[in-house]
Amino acid sequence: MKRRAYIWITLLATLVLVPAGYAYVQWSKSGPGSGVYSRAWTPEPVHAYWDPDRFYQSVQTVQGEFKGEECLACHQAVTPGIVKDWRASRHASPGPGKEPVYCSSCHGTNHQALKMPTPKVCAQCHENRHAEFVDEKRFGFPSHALAMERAVDAKHFADKPKAEVASCLQCHSVATKCDSCHTRHRFTAAEARRPEACITCHSGPPHPDDDSYFASAHGKRYLAEGDRWDWSKTLTKGNYPAPSCAYCHMRDGKHQVADKTIWKFGLLEVNPNTSGNEVRRNAWVEVCSDCHEAQWSAERLRELDRERRTAWAKLDRAETVLKNLRSKDLLHPGAGERPPYPMDLMERLLPHARIGYYDGQASAFYNVSPIERDYFEMWYFANLGAYKSAAHGDAGSTSSWHAQMDRALESIEQRAQALEEQGEAEKNALGRRHDPGPAWLEGEYTTHNRDRN
Amino acid sequence: MKRRAYIWITLLATLVLVPAGYAYVQWSKSGPGSGVYSRAWTPEPVHAYWDPDRFYQSVQTVQGEFKGEECLACHQAVTPGIVKDWRASRHASPGPGKEPVYCSSCHGTNHQALKMPTPKVCAQCHENRHAEFVDEKRFGFPSHALAMERAVDAKHFADKPKAEVASCLQCHSVATKCDSCHTRHRFTAAEARRPEACITCHSGPPHPDDDSYFASAHGKRYLAEGDRWDWSKTLTKGNYPAPSCAYCHMRDGKHQVADKTIWKFGLLEVNPNTSGNEVRRNAWVEVCSDCHEAQWSAERLRELDRERRTAWAKLDRAETVLKNLRSKDLLHPGAGERPPYPMDLMERLLPHARIGYYDGQASAFYNVSPIERDYFEMWYFANLGAYKSAAHGDAGSTSSWHAQMDRALESIEQRAQALEEQGEAEKNALGRRHDPGPAWLEGEYTTHNRDRN
Amino acid sequence: MKRRAYIWITLLATLVLVPAGYAYVQWSKSGPGSGVYSRAWTPEPVHAYWDPDRFYQSVQTVQGEFKGEECLACHQAVTPGIVKDWRASRHASPGPGKEPVYCSSCHGTNHQALKMPTPKVCAQCHENRHAEFVDEKRFGFPSHALAMERAVDAKHFADKPKAEVASCLQCHSVATKCDSCHTRHRFTAAEARRPEACITCHSGPPHPDDDSYFASAHGKRYLAEGDRWDWSKTLTKGNYPAPSCAYCHMRDGKHQVADKTIWKFGLLEVNPNTSGNEVRRNAWVEVCSDCHEAQWSAERLRELDRERRTAWAKLDRAETVLKNLRSKDLLHPGAGERPPYPMDLMERLLPHARIGYYDGQASAFYNVSPIERDYFEMWYFANLGAYKSAAHGDAGSTSSWHAQMDRALESIEQRAQALEEQGEAEKNALGRRHDPGPAWLEGEYTTHNRDRN
Repeated sequence: MKRRAYIWITLLATLVLVPAGYAYVQWSKSGPGSGVYSRAWTPEPVHAYWDPDRFYQSVQTVQGEFKGEECLACHQAVTPGIVKDWRASRHASPGPGKEPVYCSSCHGTNHQALKMPTPKVCAQCHENRHAEFVDEKRFGFPSHALAMERAVDAKHFADKPKAEVASCLQCHSVATKCDSCHTRHRFTAAEARRPEACITCHSGPPHPDDDSYFASAHGKRYLAEGDRWDWSKTLTKGNYPAPSCAYCHMRDGKHQVADKTIWKFGLLEVNPNTSGNEVRRNAWVEVCSDCHEAQWSAERLRELDRERRTAWAKLDRAETVLKNLRSKDLLHPGAGERPPYPMDLMERLLPHARIGYYDGQASAFYNVSPIERDYFEMWYFANLGAYKSAAHGDAGSTSSWHAQMDRALESIEQRAQALEEQGEAEKNALGRRHDPGPAWLEGEYTTHNRDRN
Repeated sequence: MKRRAYIWITLLATLVLVPAGYAYVQWSKSGPGSGVYSRAWTPEPVHAYWDPDRFYQSVQTVQGEFKGEECLACHQAVTPGIVKDWRASRHASPGPGKEPVYCSSCHGTNHQALKMPTPKVCAQCHENRHAEFVDEKRFGFPSHALAMERAVDAKHFADKPKAEVASCLQCHSVATKCDSCHTRHRFTAAEARRPEACITCHSGPPHPDDDSYFASAHGKRYLAEGDRWDWSKTLTKGNYPAPSCAYCHMRDGKHQVADKTIWKFGLLEVNPNTSGNEVRRNAWVEVCSDCHEAQWSAERLRELDRERRTAWAKLDRAETVLKNLRSKDLLHPGAGERPPYPMDLMERLLPHARIGYYDGQASAFYNVSPIERDYFEMWYFANLGAYKSAAHGDAGSTSSWHAQMDRALESIEQRAQALEEQGEAEKNALGRRHDPGPAWLEGEYTTHNRDRN
Repeated sequence: MKRRAYIWITLLATLVLVPAGYAYVQWSKSGPGSGVYSRAWTPEPVHAYWDPDRFYQSVQTVQGEFKGEECLACHQAVTPGIVKDWRASRHASPGPGKEPVYCSSCHGTNHQALKMPTPKVCAQCHENRHAEFVDEKRFGFPSHALAMERAVDAKHFADKPKAEVASCLQCHSVATKCDSCHTRHRFTAAEARRPEACITCHSGPPHPDDDSYFASAHGKRYLAEGDRWDWSKTLTKGNYPAPSCAYCHMRDGKHQVADKTIWKFGLLEVNPNTSGNEVRRNAWVEVCSDCHEAQWSAERLRELDRERRTAWAKLDRAETVLKNLRSKDLLHPGAGERPPYPMDLMERLLPHARIGYYDGQASAFYNVSPIERDYFEMWYFANLGAYKSAAHGDAGSTSSWHAQMDRALESIEQRAQALEEQGEAEKNALGRRHDPGPAWLEGEYTTHNRDRN
């Protein structure tokens, strides 16, 4: 065939396939549900409150147009607590010459078409903060601004029982509403500056930010004296005796927390010495130097480099063990022996055990062989716990989490040895691999999920 | 035989056996110890302070009759802290025209016959609160009012080392004294309204109420601002910016927390849609509606229904696996291979592995085969943790606990498969089941318990 | 040989060997690193801040001699937070007629030779407190004053990856600087009296002092009201409604916490009834009697005796199982199958699996067979957790930790049975023990440690 023909074919294929792919994704997302599985999966009704732009529908029990003082007059009796909160807020007393921000300013006036305010609504006044928040998207995931989108687009979110992912989505709603951090209807910056504003979500595995902060020398001073600090002050050098989450991560209140991340949440192996990371490192040293010697700050960051290197040496070793088992077909239930994700055509055609983060299964490690689950927990719980503890200066937990990684590595080594021996024995005895049976392809739990999801 | 003879035999048997049974229980309870094992088991001496009505004996070192100001005069020097607490209490300053409630009012005047006050003593003044408290008994266990009784009547309480159940009984003493929640001698309602009044007991597995509340949006506001709320206010709509434990569970201070329970603490599979539960559900929606949209509240409760359904699907599957193993005699140490509970005649005659809650072993799952223990922890720790987290709006932990349930289910499936294969192999090789040996029937730990309990 | 010859030989040998041994230890300690491995192992650079006397070197970027107000003038702009702290401190306003304690009083005046203050620097003014602190050494380890020394002298500290032991040494630096408890530069006694001063280090396994205290009735009152107590008061009877860590353990502020220890941190089996322990017990009863009945206090301590006895019965049983396996060469990787500690000549010559605390491996249980690791966790995490919970009156966790010990014992029994059966089978089949292969002698993680440590 002539060379020109190839060019033409490639060009035509591109012209057809790219728009087709684009159209397919758009079509996938336009179903009644959420994300790229919106045609296969609809979130629970409570999700309407977490992604109001897409799902919220106002109650129809109260009719009429109300505004400002009229809303308050009635809700004073119906929900007095939130009215009190509002009255104490800057929305109620915005200063001389300014109009209060009433209920109706954000929720609308027609009681049968009330809105649940989303970031866009808040952006009407708080334009800069919203712009900073949205700007985070450019740093990729994990980030607040992409939290919801990336969640509902993940295969395992659509696969797991809805009632379980509902709890995930509650925190991931940080992308689609502002009251995750600024609790309604007081909305005071003073509240959002305190660590409690962050820890409703940033707690527990895989991100024990609360434990690690509160166990650090910083957190300890906060716990002992924080109630007497003046939280109306901005997050600026000299205003606080010890830092809160926001003091370091949201310098001067900037609503973008991703621009100083060197180690990417501890999720991935990174080279901490790239030129980009040197810029970020200097930004950190500058923050720490509000109170500490710059030399000390730099050494603490180097220490974190080393902690990460140790953690990754352990994870690498575990991953090597697993990949070796996979190559010998010794993982069971292995790929093809458990139900594929919904709409996962590729997995159906080419079953393939995915090991580690880049291989693609991420937090989906819930329907795999026990040794893979061990690795998942080692990576996602112990490793991330170690990172957060080391990063926040919680020495005790850094040790504990590393001990847990050692423990997991030991267990993985031992299980692997047993699987190798068992595989050998079975090959000798049966001339073939052991058949794990239908345990994971069907059964009450799997069937239950399928039926009700 | 004539029909009349049957009637007479039945009637006579009833007339003999019912009183005999009643007398036997009374006799069992009338020993030197506590509960139906009172003749086989005496609690540790410290228990005198937890069930004072039954066991407390006053110290004999101080002689004489004292009252009112005389007690204070001396204890001002001996235990100044508690005297200060009392002086700051409403007992010391009950208002114009009222007599203070002195030490002697509750402890008595004869120093060699001092009493440790019990709920009945407090009821002399706080009659209504006490009546509410006692009323809880009608809802069965778990309830505060039955906490002590049901504990000391449980077989495993009498079987486990005393030093271990001592720690259980410390919290179960909530039934037999009031200072579990109202710390002596300040006794302020303001203290009891705060979550700390509850969490001394409601913490840790199997009821992480503290963690789940503090990690919720409610708890977060409490942590950040609670110290500045006015706790002298009653637990009524509009008085608090966010709820504490008591705000929702002890509405208006009502000392009865069992009348709104739909899911029974997460312990049992329930039908959440019975007419009775619809009444309770509406009561919950009413509570939540103090601040939230009723529609939102209803959806959150539906969400909890679904979380429970998922949890129970997992537990059902695990229980099925275990019952299958039991039917094949593959649990070891199985029934009959470990020491029966004390006085457990039935277990001696008819050894029978009990699986799950209704089968009767409950928290006694400490001397069983490892796979049964896995199930116990799945049910009692992970499942209850999931329930508490979901119920209190702690999204992160709901996910974690469900991940732990998945993990346990996986482990149970795998262990079961191994036991099946091993059983098969042994049957082929030996023509009979493997003998676990005397590991659990004797040995240092078991002997130690027997000797010292 | 004549008797006199023996005497001369012994005398000469002693005269040579004792000084030789002494000289060897001195030589070992005089290397560039820290502790007896100072010639083989140098701590991470950040350690300079934790053992400043030995490692800290001042930054060279600022030149000149400064004192008093001059330091402040500049640091007001550079690090305003710590200057504010200092201005609010008693160092800044020591009272009429007294000279302030300026930056230069502790750090020196030459900016290129600044010191990081150590206990000796603080002792210039706080002589008595320092003497109490040093006095703790006579009670042996664990103690604050020996924390650093004993850490860097432990084999496993020199063996584990530096980045991991760095986190250990952060807390162990309590021996070599005072700001572990008195956070700079406010240095208020009021802060150090609060539990937060202790829990930066005393948290998490193996010493969940924070959890156990905060879950106790004492901790609960602290959490609910502590912010309103007057912390400027001394730690004396009647000054506080409930105790903090320091109230009981550092009576009247005494900087020595080891003289009342009966159960030695829960680490060792002790006889709680020695005459020495009776003296300590009475000292405890006296502390508790500040608020409680002496009889009650004595019973709580007896209860703790019993809790310990139960815990040790479990540990004894586990240790017996392990020693039996060791005697049959059934632990693998066993001694000789994993890399010995650096400079551990004896282990190289006479490989010997060390089981339990006295055998010598202590917290080094990270490179051993899984069943030994189970025992380590049972002893070091569950057992110590149980002790701390019981000692601090956290009933719920006492039960949980004991359940975890039971669980571990079960697992150890089962693993041991499997190892015995496997060993038997291998002996029958191969005529020899199974070879675990080089898994623990080399491999990525071990090699990684060796290369980079």
